[in-house]
Amino acid sequence: MPDIFSEDTIAAIATPIGEGALSVIRLSGKSSIDALEGFFKGKKPLSECATHTIHYGTFSNGSGDLIDDVLVSVFRAPRSYTGEDSVEISTHGNPIISQNILTCLLKSGVRLAEPGEFTRRAFLNGRIDLAQAEAVCDLISSRTDTSLKGARNQLNGLLSRKVNELRDILVDIFSLLELELDFAEEDLEFADRSDIIARLDRLTGEVERLIDSFSFGRVFRDGVNVAIIGKPNVGKSSLLNYLLKESRAIVSSTPGTTRDIIREEIVIDGILYTLFDTAGIRQSADAVEAEGIFRSWESVKNADLVLFMNDIQTGIDEDMRKELRAHLESRRMITVLNKIDIDPGTAIDADIKISALTGSGVEGLFSVFRERVFESKIYSEKSAVITNVRHLDSLTKAREALRRSREGISGNMSGEFIAADLRMAEGSLSEIIGKTTTDDVLNNIFSKFCIGK
Amino acid sequence: MPDIFSEDTIAAIATPIGEGALSVIRLSGKSSIDALEGFFKGKKPLSECATHTIHYGTFSNGSGDLIDDVLVSVFRAPRSYTGEDSVEISTHGNPIISQNILTCLLKSGVRLAEPGEFTRRAFLNGRIDLAQAEAVCDLISSRTDTSLKGARNQLNGLLSRKVNELRDILVDIFSLLELELDFAEEDLEFADRSDIIARLDRLTGEVERLIDSFSFGRVFRDGVNVAIIGKPNVGKSSLLNYLLKESRAIVSSTPGTTRDIIREEIVIDGILYTLFDTAGIRQSADAVEAEGIFRSWESVKNADLVLFMNDIQTGIDEDMRKELRAHLESRRMITVLNKIDIDPGTAIDADIKISALTGSGVEGLFSVFRERVFESKIYSEKSAVITNVRHLDSLTKAREALRRSREGISGNMSGEFIAADLRMAEGSLSEIIGKTTTDDVLNNIFSKFCIGK
Repeated sequence: MPDIFSEDTIAAIATPIGEGALSVIRLSGKSSIDALEGFFKGKKPLSECATHTIHYGTFSNGSGDLIDDVLVSVFRAPRSYTGEDSVEISTHGNPIISQNILTCLLKSGVRLAEPGEFTRRAFLNGRIDLAQAEAVCDLISSRTDTSLKGARNQLNGLLSRKVNELRDILVDIFSLLELELDFAEEDLEFADRSDIIARLDRLTGEVERLIDSFSFGRVFRDGVNVAIIGKPNVGKSSLLNYLLKESRAIVSSTPGTTRDIIREEIVIDGILYTLFDTAGIRQSADAVEAEGIFRSWESVKNADLVLFMNDIQTGIDEDMRKELRAHLESRRMITVLNKIDIDPGTAIDADIKISALTGSGVEGLFSVFRERVFESKIYSEKSAVITNVRHLDSLTKAREALRRSREGISGNMSGEFIAADLRMAEGSLSEIIGKTTTDDVLNNIFSKFCIGK
Repeated sequence: MPDIFSEDTIAAIATPIGEGALSVIRLSGKSSIDALEGFFKGKKPLSECATHTIHYGTFSNGSGDLIDDVLVSVFRAPRSYTGEDSVEISTHGNPIISQNILTCLLKSGVRLAEPGEFTRRAFLNGRIDLAQAEAVCDLISSRTDTSLKGARNQLNGLLSRKVNELRDILVDIFSLLELELDFAEEDLEFADRSDIIARLDRLTGEVERLIDSFSFGRVFRDGVNVAIIGKPNVGKSSLLNYLLKESRAIVSSTPGTTRDIIREEIVIDGILYTLFDTAGIRQSADAVEAEGIFRSWESVKNADLVLFMNDIQTGIDEDMRKELRAHLESRRMITVLNKIDIDPGTAIDADIKISALTGSGVEGLFSVFRERVFESKIYSEKSAVITNVRHLDSLTKAREALRRSREGISGNMSGEFIAADLRMAEGSLSEIIGKTTTDDVLNNIFSKFCIGK
């Protein structure tokens, strides 16, 4: 698979920017070893060094001023991440040092790597397929152990193997149909139609299972956005404080994008919840003003779940509930009565009663979250899962083509049409692993990577 | 040199925390290679792998769940940074992955490294001396090319060689004096007194030059803190804005520690200036209140230079100047008249006139900064420079001992006393390179390091 860039040698800083013990500059391409000539001085020339060996020496700039003493790791094609000759330069962990070294290399004909270009080269050189390449990006940006495990499975080829298995079945079927077409004059039927139907149904079932898995997959990868809304003093901030204190797995606490919305992230049972505390939302009798207030809830609308909090002593704010119901599917809205520590309350039309102060009922709240998010579907770690919208699109296209071919068979259509639909389904599946992918798709995928990977 | 910790094997994450292409976990100590057993699976056991080789494989936790595929670099004693057996594990750059791997290692008997412990071991194992070890820390925290160069020189041994050279001269002299004492009964004089005096004077001169170099050294390492003060609307923020826009070498822009003080860092001619903009300082006729306001200027007082800004149209605020003069040495205070774009002004008692709007005169302002900071002393890159208060203290002690010995000779004191003083001077110099250093001193030095170095 040719790539316009593949002749270049590329370089980038591969470690996060910041103070640390060490940082690493990475090079890949034909001239990666030669590029260090004139800068690196070790015991022997790097050109004589074997693959997978490490060499201590000094890195000086073009004028011979020492920049740092470094360790250079040599990887020779095809035994490297990219499949090309590669070099890693390990320096003292000061961003100025790694930047100075990078600058020297860029002046000597090496090009700064595009985001994800090392992984793109690994893909183009057949080291990994496209779904695996995408998993590398997910692996790096994973925020929880659960999302890590998903990315890990995908990088190991769990999804790719599944997709290949489905493709093989498809190829089998349409090959038979195409063989028939070759012998069309003899009016032979190599493929038993009822057998083909049975196989297509199984196949479609598998594709649908993968499509369905996206609802977990997405949550496992990106987490669940929960907007907490309600009148002032119903206990929104108390709930947040309780959760942040109790949760040992706080990922981070970042101020929100606007002054009024506090954003906190917690991990519960391996799932990342991003909680948006919308302080100061008032309810207004005036419908126009209410709509105005509602519009300001952009982040609320974008939430997967909306936690509608009420004080059990004053009961549910019916106006606000009405407003919310008009804008949200019922599955996304969870009505909560808080302050059961003060008042146990009577049976009332809410999803759950809690005390944000004592934490009573809070565990149950997260069960409700999980029910609503997963819709009681069951997920097994061993099965391939879709986490990626691109894969979802390809699978959806494959399902459509499969349905058309199924209808074609039932409608006794010519094998030619059926085979064409099956080829289309196969093509859609192939997109997932990158057997048929345009440069635009690749550019889009790899632009999401960090530089240096 | 024994160390209570040296039997342990230590581990730490050596790359900055954050998202990146890769991160590195570092181990050092007798069991560093064995510690990976049960976790790492490569082509062949690490115990059979040669030094300076890299091995691809998988790292799984104790239950056999894959954490990541990794590259393991093996370094065998004494050919490693610490001089001990060492291992570096390179993983995908997600902090959860490196943390998970570190957790596995810590559960299997490896200890989390103390800050700077890898470098401390390098020192204890004689790989580098103490001044060089300190340079490692400076190298990592350097903010400018100039400070990097200083740290680099120190790590290369420029200072250590100088110190050793001075020690050698001292040892020569007191050895002669002590030889005389051995032959005291025979009343021999091995060492010509006038020759000793000449050598001591040269030596003291060299020590003084090093002590003097601290005034550059400190500035080159840590930069110059400049507080900008003045009434509202004299153009303090305009000056900051002009500098930030013009300076291409902005290091960072961080909000200050208090709401009222804006802190900005710029690099001009390789020197880091940290500018503190003290917005909203008012002058009060009431001396008590003025003192109160002055007290709130803690960061102003801690500044190396205070830039006292005035509007050329209204002239110098004499009350504030009086207040400042009462608290600052004149060298530290720079009186500026701003807005010469509006009014060129007449000759007036200020250090410099500028326009923060057009930038006119701003270059001259930095010349004034440099004059005030360096007090017209000249610095050569090739000469050893002191950047460290600890070294300054040792040199000052050495100078005192040298002076006493000089007086002893002039006063015809017994060689015994003179030799004792010279031994003391030698001991003080030895502290710099760590030949005579207590654990407390070491603890203090290495606690300033980052973990993983």
